[in-house]
Amino acid sequence: MAACNPDALLLRALRNEKQERMPLWVMRQAGRYLPEYRKLRKQAGSFLNLCNSPEMACTATLQPLRRYRLDAAIVFSDILIVADALGCELGFAEGEGPFLARPAADEKMIASLAEPGVDAFAGVAATIGACRGELAEDVALIGFAGAPFTLACYMVQGSGGREFALARRLMLTEPQAFAELIDRTTRAVAACLSAQAAAGADVLMLFESWAALAAPHYLDEHVVKPAAKVIALLREAGIDLPIIVFPRNAEQVAGKMVAAGANAIGVGWQADLVEVRAAVGEQTALQGNLDPAALLADRETLRSAIARTVAAHGTGAGGRIFNLGHGIGKETDPESMAILVDAVREFSAC
Amino acid sequence: MAACNPDALLLRALRNEKQERMPLWVMRQAGRYLPEYRKLRKQAGSFLNLCNSPEMACTATLQPLRRYRLDAAIVFSDILIVADALGCELGFAEGEGPFLARPAADEKMIASLAEPGVDAFAGVAATIGACRGELAEDVALIGFAGAPFTLACYMVQGSGGREFALARRLMLTEPQAFAELIDRTTRAVAACLSAQAAAGADVLMLFESWAALAAPHYLDEHVVKPAAKVIALLREAGIDLPIIVFPRNAEQVAGKMVAAGANAIGVGWQADLVEVRAAVGEQTALQGNLDPAALLADRETLRSAIARTVAAHGTGAGGRIFNLGHGIGKETDPESMAILVDAVREFSAC
Repeated sequence: MAACNPDALLLRALRNEKQERMPLWVMRQAGRYLPEYRKLRKQAGSFLNLCNSPEMACTATLQPLRRYRLDAAIVFSDILIVADALGCELGFAEGEGPFLARPAADEKMIASLAEPGVDAFAGVAATIGACRGELAEDVALIGFAGAPFTLACYMVQGSGGREFALARRLMLTEPQAFAELIDRTTRAVAACLSAQAAAGADVLMLFESWAALAAPHYLDEHVVKPAAKVIALLREAGIDLPIIVFPRNAEQVAGKMVAAGANAIGVGWQADLVEVRAAVGEQTALQGNLDPAALLADRETLRSAIARTVAAHGTGAGGRIFNLGHGIGKETDPESMAILVDAVREFSAC
Repeated sequence: MAACNPDALLLRALRNEKQERMPLWVMRQAGRYLPEYRKLRKQAGSFLNLCNSPEMACTATLQPLRRYRLDAAIVFSDILIVADALGCELGFAEGEGPFLARPAADEKMIASLAEPGVDAFAGVAATIGACRGELAEDVALIGFAGAPFTLACYMVQGSGGREFALARRLMLTEPQAFAELIDRTTRAVAACLSAQAAAGADVLMLFESWAALAAPHYLDEHVVKPAAKVIALLREAGIDLPIIVFPRNAEQVAGKMVAAGANAIGVGWQADLVEVRAAVGEQTALQGNLDPAALLADRETLRSAIARTVAAHGTGAGGRIFNLGHGIGKETDPESMAILVDAVREFSAC
């Protein structure tokens, strides 16, 4: 498959090369704030149908690129496809978010999980393949997966609520079973990302959205080490794509993630970007940090917030990627995204 | 009114005096995990009825004390009574949690808020008065209020969901209006705590439950300074009770809260207690840190987790108060609380 131009701005930032401006993309840029997405979602009948149809998922992936001058597309998919491939049976209740019909709630259920290989992720790979040919060569295509700890929390709990108390209980009461779950999930995540790499992704990203639910003494074991193993498995398989790790609300592990092989760190909006930069040094790209609520504000407020985020990214040698610190909200006016794109190009130009 | 014995263990811990064991209480100890609470709640008809009846609220306050050897009672109330007194009209939708029928969503609504004095909090004061006579003299009675930033987030949003995006928007777009809201709320919080002090509370606690939703550059302005002002207003009013501040998931402000006059810091379960102790030194009491999920585990796992938390509290000169790092979950078996009480007494004995 054709990859994007190696000089695409996002790839250069990920290599910490000199940037004439910050590359820009937005988490959940293909999403509900776009009327054309809502229309497509309605046609698909369900979120899962949309995810599972490479043609429709490709359309969703490309929608924000048709409106905005973004430097990357992120494949339209869901972090829980790995849980589904492991056998937890992903579903979506209308208006309620995702659930897993067969949670991996105990040792026996964990032992009976499937062992998905690269083939199990043919759907998202097909979406990537479909998108690749449609994208301009200076637009990078990002493949992604949920990170093992976040997926394990969902798989034990079966849904997203209650601060995953059941998962935290299992971690305490059956540490071996939880470790086994993390280990199986780690291999599945690597398979999912390998499939996307083989299909033509230019960049890979690991979303550790619930990293903060690992108490501090668990962060190394359940967050840092599994991410390190995913990266090692990818490198062993000969995949040398840049990898972004987003340990949301646990950015204190950023330095360890870099040591684990991450090429870039996603930074949530609640973290202090300057502190994260100090922790990782100048040989690592940082991405993110704008509060998505800024996109709900008026034009001048939004522009000021963007200017502040650009300034916080600094002008050092480390790569800088503009993004929000969390997914774009569904209440966002699409016009605000247009303001954002212009402002990032204006403020980050060197 | 009669206060508890000045040598009560909790008060001694709050003065950083030598403790023969750690005093113990549990956030939300009067709550849904107790069958007798669920019965009372049903009799009351609604959560608000229960809060608003000093007699029933006193019964709820005392229920955990009748079962367990706890060192403190915390008055049965809700952090949102201050929002209600400001005019936002607190309600509870069955199974959905609290909402404010008249949110303070813009400058005009903020300007039209009420200015509640001490009298506006006669209800919770009456509950405190009713409880005081029923408690053993070695049991401290804790009065509390939501802290200004957390309350402001609720008041703008009108409910608890969506990570308070509307509040974050207002903070950005109308900084003066948001500052005005914080300022009005700060005075109301001080009035609420003053009323509870006058009614016989032995200790006051400020719950800044959503501190982490203030981006780092807002923490000083919207979290630390308002707490400092609440404390200053109380001290100016001659109230010298010890004050515990709980900046949940933003424990990095602990040192500043101590400088602001807090006598103790509540520490969430996601924070590293040893780091917080290093930040505040040995002249400040710390409270909390056990993951409430430990109470969902088997006896031995629970005891191990408690031993680890006791060890993390250390044996230095700073006061140590055993508590969870968040409220006790409604799924908790009441027997687990009994195990916890025994284990804390056993492990923390000097």
